[in-house]
Parts: sequence; C-alpha cells; structure tokens
Amino acid sequence: MSSASPVPEMHPQRWGDPASATVLPDSALGLVELAFGLQDRRPVSGARPPACALDAALLDDLRRVVGAEHVLVDDATRTVRTRGKSTPDLLRARAGDLADAPDAVVRPDGHAEVEAVLRWADEHRVAVVPFGGGTCVTGGLAARRDGFAGVISLDLGRMRRLLAVDEVSMTATLEPGLRGPEAEALLAERGLTLGHYPQSFRHASIGGFAATRSSGQSSAGYGRFDAMVVGLTAATPTGSLDLGAAPASAAGPDLRQLLLGSEGAFGVITSVTLRVRRAPAVTAYEGWRWPSFGAGSDAMRVLAQSGLLPTVLRLSDEAETAINLADPSAIGATDDPGCLMVTGYEGTEALVEARRAAVTAALTDLGGTPLGTEPGERWAHGRFDGPYLRDALLDHGVLVETLETACFWSDRARLHADVSTALTSSLGEGTLVLCHVSHVYETGCSLYFTVAARQGDDPLTQWQAAKAAASDAIVAAGATISHHHAIGTDHRPWLAAEIGEVGVRVLRAVKAELDPRGVLNPGVLIP
Amino acid sequence: MSSASPVPEMHPQRWGDPASATVLPDSALGLVELAFGLQDRRPVSGARPPACALDAALLDDLRRVVGAEHVLVDDATRTVRTRGKSTPDLLRARAGDLADAPDAVVRPDGHAEVEAVLRWADEHRVAVVPFGGGTCVTGGLAARRDGFAGVISLDLGRMRRLLAVDEVSMTATLEPGLRGPEAEALLAERGLTLGHYPQSFRHASIGGFAATRSSGQSSAGYGRFDAMVVGLTAATPTGSLDLGAAPASAAGPDLRQLLLGSEGAFGVITSVTLRVRRAPAVTAYEGWRWPSFGAGSDAMRVLAQSGLLPTVLRLSDEAETAINLADPSAIGATDDPGCLMVTGYEGTEALVEARRAAVTAALTDLGGTPLGTEPGERWAHGRFDGPYLRDALLDHGVLVETLETACFWSDRARLHADVSTALTSSLGEGTLVLCHVSHVYETGCSLYFTVAARQGDDPLTQWQAAKAAASDAIVAAGATISHHHAIGTDHRPWLAAEIGEVGVRVLRAVKAELDPRGVLNPGVLIP
Repeated sequence: MSSASPVPEMHPQRWGDPASATVLPDSALGLVELAFGLQDRRPVSGARPPACALDAALLDDLRRVVGAEHVLVDDATRTVRTRGKSTPDLLRARAGDLADAPDAVVRPDGHAEVEAVLRWADEHRVAVVPFGGGTCVTGGLAARRDGFAGVISLDLGRMRRLLAVDEVSMTATLEPGLRGPEAEALLAERGLTLGHYPQSFRHASIGGFAATRSSGQSSAGYGRFDAMVVGLTAATPTGSLDLGAAPASAAGPDLRQLLLGSEGAFGVITSVTLRVRRAPAVTAYEGWRWPSFGAGSDAMRVLAQSGLLPTVLRLSDEAETAINLADPSAIGATDDPGCLMVTGYEGTEALVEARRAAVTAALTDLGGTPLGTEPGERWAHGRFDGPYLRDALLDHGVLVETLETACFWSDRARLHADVSTALTSSLGEGTLVLCHVSHVYETGCSLYFTVAARQGDDPLTQWQAAKAAASDAIVAAGATISHHHAIGTDHRPWLAAEIGEVGVRVLRAVKAELDPRGVLNPGVLIP
Repeated sequence: MSSASPVPEMHPQRWGDPASATVLPDSALGLVELAFGLQDRRPVSGARPPACALDAALLDDLRRVVGAEHVLVDDATRTVRTRGKSTPDLLRARAGDLADAPDAVVRPDGHAEVEAVLRWADEHRVAVVPFGGGTCVTGGLAARRDGFAGVISLDLGRMRRLLAVDEVSMTATLEPGLRGPEAEALLAERGLTLGHYPQSFRHASIGGFAATRSSGQSSAGYGRFDAMVVGLTAATPTGSLDLGAAPASAAGPDLRQLLLGSEGAFGVITSVTLRVRRAPAVTAYEGWRWPSFGAGSDAMRVLAQSGLLPTVLRLSDEAETAINLADPSAIGATDDPGCLMVTGYEGTEALVEARRAAVTAALTDLGGTPLGTEPGERWAHGRFDGPYLRDALLDHGVLVETLETACFWSDRARLHADVSTALTSSLGEGTLVLCHVSHVYETGCSLYFTVAARQGDDPLTQWQAAKAAASDAIVAAGATISHHHAIGTDHRPWLAAEIGEVGVRVLRAVKAELDPRGVLNPGVLIP
C-alpha cells in the first residue's frame, strides 16, 4: 500500500537536523556561565570508523540476498549508524570514538529478506543490530563484537509502508522503518492517527517504538505504544512469528508482550498492527500552577483514579518549572512559579469540551490555578526540541542527560528524593536536577529527570558514575529501571534486580530458543 | 492481614451449591420436550475414584512439608477435585467416570510451602495440578498421568488472605485461593472492589482468574483480569518469580504477561497485586432493543471507539434474545424481541449520571430503543445462574454447552455465521445456537455461544465433534481459540494454528527452563 517520503539522517555527533540546531542566546549563555562556567567542548572532526572486518565473500553472499546497492560499507553510512543518541553516545562520538561502528549497513526490503539476512548472520556468526531511527538512549545499538565475525547494522529504512488499514476495526499495519512523522502522514491521508508522540518522534521508528516499549507525551489519552499493538510479525534466525488473532485473548500467555521490549534480541519486528484513532478535530493545551510537586502529583493521581484524564498530562517539579530547560529565554522570569502542569485535550469538539470542563472543575477543586493556554501552547511548540538544547549545552561544557523510571503512587515522593540525592551526591555541588511526571496510570506514574552539571575532564566516566548511583537508587526504591527507554546495554546491570534470577533465566531461555547462536543484538537487554 | 470465610465446595457432578439448583417449571419443561424431547439422564451415583497410586513414604514426605492434615487421600476430597465444570467434565462425572481423580489433595499454606511441594514433585516426578475454585471449562484440571508417579491436586484453598492494601496507589495484594465473593468481601471492608464478575464469580478463585486470563461481565468498565494485574509472585520447581516494579515498564519484555494465562504449566501463582477501585455508590442496569445483531454490535463498536463505554455492555443475538436460556419463564414472551442489549453503569452518582446520559444519547442516535431498567435488573439478578440451568437441562437429556472466541470488528459477522453453521452442521437439525457479545474493545469483541441439542447415546463424543467443528471454524476465521477461558486440554489442538510453530517452541522453551521435568500440569496448555 502507501509508502512514505523519508526523514533525513541525523548528524553523527548531534541530534536531529543541523538546520534546527539550538543557538544559545546571550542571556542563556550568561546563566550557563554563572551556573557551570563556560568551556569550549565542541566535537572533534574527521574521525573515521575502523575498517570493515567482514570478508568480501561474506558480503557478496549478503548482496545476493538484498541487492548490491543495499549492502553499504562506506565510512559515512557506517558512522551515522554507530550507537544511538544518549549523552554517553554523543560524548563518544564527539570525541571521535567510532569503535562501535558496524562493519556494514544492510538494508533489507520486507519480511522475507530480513529472514534471509538473519539466516546468513546465524550461519556466519555475524552480530545483527536492528536500526530504525537511531534514537536509542540506552546503548541498545552497540552490540558486543567478541566472538563474532563482525557486526552489521540491519537498517529497516526501506521498510516504510502502510501495509493495511481496517477502518471498521480501527487498525493499521505498518512496517518498522516508518519514522513517526512518516507514519502519521500516511495515516492522516485517511483521517487517522496513532497519537504516539515521544520526544524522539521526528526521527524514531515504528519498529523502535515496539521493540523498546516507547511511551509518548500524549500517553494519558492514547496509551503507551505497547498498548496500541494488537498484532505483530517478527523474523528470527530460526523461524517467524505472526501474533495477534484478536484484541485480547486467553489463548495462553500473551506472546506479543514477549516481543515488545525485546530490543532486537529475540527477533526483528517486521510489521506491527496498531489500534488507530480518528485524527483529532480539536487540540487545546493549557497550563496550571500548583504550589508544590506533591500537590500537583496528587491531583494527577486523582484524575487518573477517577477516569478523568486529559490527552496530555505533565507536571514539572519546582526546579524544572523554575529553570525550564526547554526554553532558556524564560529562565528566571518568575520569582515563585510553583510547579507547572500542562494539560492537553485532543478529539472531537464535543469530547474536548466535555473532558476539558470536567478536568478543569476537578483541578480547580484540588487547588490548581489555571494559567490559560500560553504555557500549554509554549510546551507544545517546543515539545520535540530538548535534544537540540542538549547539543548546545554539551558544546559549552555542560554535562546534560536525562533518565526516567516509574513507580506506584505511594513511592513517588521517596523515589523523587532518592534519585535526586543520588545524582547530586555523585556529580557534586552545583548540579541541577529537574524532574517531571509525564505518564500517569491509576496505580502510579513515571518520573523523568534532567541533570546538568559542569563537565569535568572525563565527562563520560563522570556521567556513568552518576547514572550508576541513580540506577542503584531506583532499584533500591523498588521502581523500574526504565519506564519507556528500554534496557539496552546501559540498564543491563540493573535488570536482574528487577526481574530476579528466574526472570533472567526465562529471557535467556527464549533467546536460546529463537536465536541459538546469539547473533541478535548480542550484549543488549539480557544480563 | 485479613482472611476470608470459605465458599462451600461444589457438587462433584453439578455446578455450585445444591441449594441453588434450578428446577425447571412445567412451562419450560413443555418447551424443552417440544424442542428436544424429554429424557431421564440423571447422574449415576456411588462412583469411587481409583485408589491412590502414590506410595506411603512419598506421602509422608509431603506431610512433613504441609502438615499431615493437609495431605488428603479420601475418596470424597479427591472426587470433588476431579476435573472442572465443562459439559464434557460433567458428562464424565455424571457417568461415574473418575479416572482423572488426583491421587492426593495437598493444601499448602503460603509461597514457601508451595515451593517445597513443587521441589518434592520435581524430585519424585509427581504431576501437580493447581486447584483454585475448580470452575475450569477447558479441561485444565485433568493432567496427563503417563510417565508420572502420580498426580496431586495442589489445592490453594488455605491461601485466602488479603496480604496488603495500598489505598494511595489503589492496589491490593491477594492470595490465589480467594474465591470471587471472598475477595470482594475483604475489599469491601475498605470500600474497595475489583469489579471482576465472570459467570463463575461465586466459586472461581483469584489465582484461577490470573492463570486463565479471565474476563468478567463488567469488563467494559473494569477491564479484563489480566489488565488489573500490576504484580505477581509465582513458585516454580526451579525458583520463584516476583514481578511488577511499576504499573508499566520498558525494562524488557513484560514477564507478567507470560505467567498470566500460563494455567499452572509454568509455575503456581502465589499472589497477585491488583489495581482496585472504589466500590461503586450507584449501580444501574438497563435494556435496549436493536432491530438486529448487526445493528446492535455496530453500536457497541461506536461506543468502544469513541471512549464512551458503560461498565457493562452485552448484546444477545436474535436467537438468544428470543430464547433467553437464563430465564426460561420468559421464553416466547414476545413475538419479535429483536436483539437485547444490557447496559450497566457503576460508580459515583455524578459519574454514573454523566456516562449514562452520554451513552443514552449515543445509543438513541444509533437507532436503539430504550427498554428501561427491568431487562437490565433481570439480567443482573440471574447473571451467575446459567450453569445451574445447564445441570437441569442435562438431567432432562439436553446437551448444553458454551464456547467463546474473540475477533476484530471486521470479522464479527463472518465469525458468528461460521461458528453457528459449524455447530448446527455437526449437531444436526433442531440444534439451538445462541450468541452474545459480552466484551468489547476499540478494535474488536468477544462472541459467546450457547448450544443446545438433544443428547444422543454418547453425548460426550457428540459434543466433542461439535466443539472440534466450531474450533476449526474459529481458527479458519483467524479468531482466537479462547477469549477468556484459556487453553486447558480442550483447546490445545488449535493453539499452534493461532501462535504458530515458533510460538509453540517459545512456550516449550519457557516450560523447559522453569519446569525441566515437566511436572506442572502436564498435558495442559502447551501443544
């Protein structure tokens, strides 16, 4: 069926489209200097990846499978597919470290070609890293090399079709290489939407959303990505899966939930069938002020537990509200801004009106102060821009990164405090720790932290220590090591604490069954 | 924490409490005679189970684990735990066939005792059948005996505590042996509810709901049971699982979803942490008339896809509306009753009022005719009584059974037709096939069939042929072999068609890892 026009590739040392890069205004630079000092930490240039380690005969086999023009070994193509976009990934890339570059980039078209590539990789013991948008922030694109003949990046960028739409059942079947905007554009032609808008939306892919259990900024209204998936197909070195005979089933364990979050370690997702919605006729975003993070998050809990959620519901803590990293021109604009909540409504005019009235009444009762549409619209305008600001701050010697977790409501205050303390203790005085709640459930919520500190001589090691401290605090609080960014390699040391030794054995058993030689994204996910 | 007073055991050859048995009034008997002829097919009495095959030393080991009084080998105790309550199960029990009786009934108290029993079973190669309420209708309580030293029924009836309640997060941790009414009574002391009301509610257990992915009659409002589970613990012969660090997570595949629906074949669920709700202040049930099943189910789809669901939403097809098996006194009361829809609303007065008004407006727009509260209250009154009527009809020589499936909305009409045709073709002229939709989703719905025919000489074989024909039709339509009753042994031949050969291999690999000697419910679930 329909196919999409492509999203451009990202810069290998920065986020996104160079044309959209953030330039810090003088006012912001002044504040940065005051807080962290200004340094010149612009990226080195001219780095080249190691030579391709795969021998010519092996590559020729592969060319026969996908076509010669779809097996790429040039430096530029391999460089762009080296690692993802976490701050550690960027720090390595900025320092010219391309040690994790794939030996070749392979671009299959369709399920059968993916299957054939996996059989080839299995036979020749070549590690396979599925690549969608390259936006991973947990180290999921840096496969282990040892014990393998080489590593290929399995770029799904040719698989960008809308395969089927069922407007009665309100489902759409999409290929994994579709980026967020491409998928939405194809659905918009029929008046449909997924409503999945993570910060990575402009570059991340449908397959990546599924493989990492992504959750978007409109999750209060549209749900997590995994909740949208009603069916999927996946290729493994030992056969294929085609799951999802009904919206819900009691035909044994839900195997869809085993592939969702499997990060390319069990198989390559070659299509997903997703619940879609009618594209909203009306969108409205508003701001509310709360006297404290506790008061605001209690209000979120009441909304979630009374079935009164808006489409978007976010709450910044006192520090994030004051700083508002996403919009440096607003820094310091207000003396006591309290905590900013953003509420958003999407749908038909009647539904938006009714929900907005009910939520407004509830939030007013709970002690919120309405701030009108300006803060909401400002948030919506900049909602995908955070990573550009990170690049600018990294250039000026600020260490900036985010991390996230989720917990039950009872644990929210303790988790917020413990993770903040862990980060500050590790990074030292002057560290900024900002937090917001961006996803809510009846029983709990996510916490999303942004951290900024002065870069030391070795910012990578500096961050790894802080991240380890935060991860220890998360695990000690009984929370999850990732609410919507997956395990990758960065969270792997903490997974066993969350799912236990028996849980780890189950993952290994499934891996051994589907991928007996372990060629699928080795070193990722499974402890 | 709190413990519950017990629900009485069921009759070994009938459903439920003998005091609640249905006696068919003369008017109903007349109609039954007209439709199927009257036969005397009352159960035989005096059957005894085979002698216990486990040797005394083995049983003594077990007595040391759980206490001598909790290892029971008497005939009555073993007879009551023989198989479940499907019509095939009842036909066998009524004929005096107790070949599937367990050798002993073992009643552990708590996770550690369950673990110890499983290690004992693993060591001595004894098959273990977890037993909650004994309401299974898919053959999940009849384990394979061959290759085992014997079979024990692992009765979870002593594990009936409410272990924890978190009224901030709105979660409750319950033990698996709690029956539906016991769990609700314990939660009601705190003004809470699960809202899970399958037809088996009065006898079925929390552990069974989880292990079979149950769905209740109020699923439109409260969700499926699997959707309520935020955490669980399970014991296996090789270690224990404790899952659920947050309401939702991206920390790899969702392993909770692997235990849900595992039917005792992967492990024994020893507690579940469930999302709870405030007990409703108001409940209101109403009836609507639709000119056809198609028109009514289209209306359900519109409600589901516009986020406007009542708490209960059910629709009977023309035949079920006319016959209304659950209330024989109403048979034939109306000449053209069309199709009856039941809508139910539960919650605070304000929420019920608002939702009822919105749904009423939508259903009126869509062509429904409101019938007031009487049909809704009548449904609510008899909602758990269907199985008693089945016993009465079986006594009189009618073969009665139910089966269910689910599909995407586009496939509903075809699935309804194909399954009906398969049943009628197999059972012959005069067969009654009734159907209702009892669970809806944005993308699809369940179909629940009730079948009645004259019992032939061998009603068990007669039903097995009809069930096979219906199952073939379900699989051919691409629907699920079970929406809320699990696989057991009865659906096992059709599971591979649904999840594929690779899916089956995944189940086997998980089983082999957790239960390497295969003692957990052998022959159940896994093809």
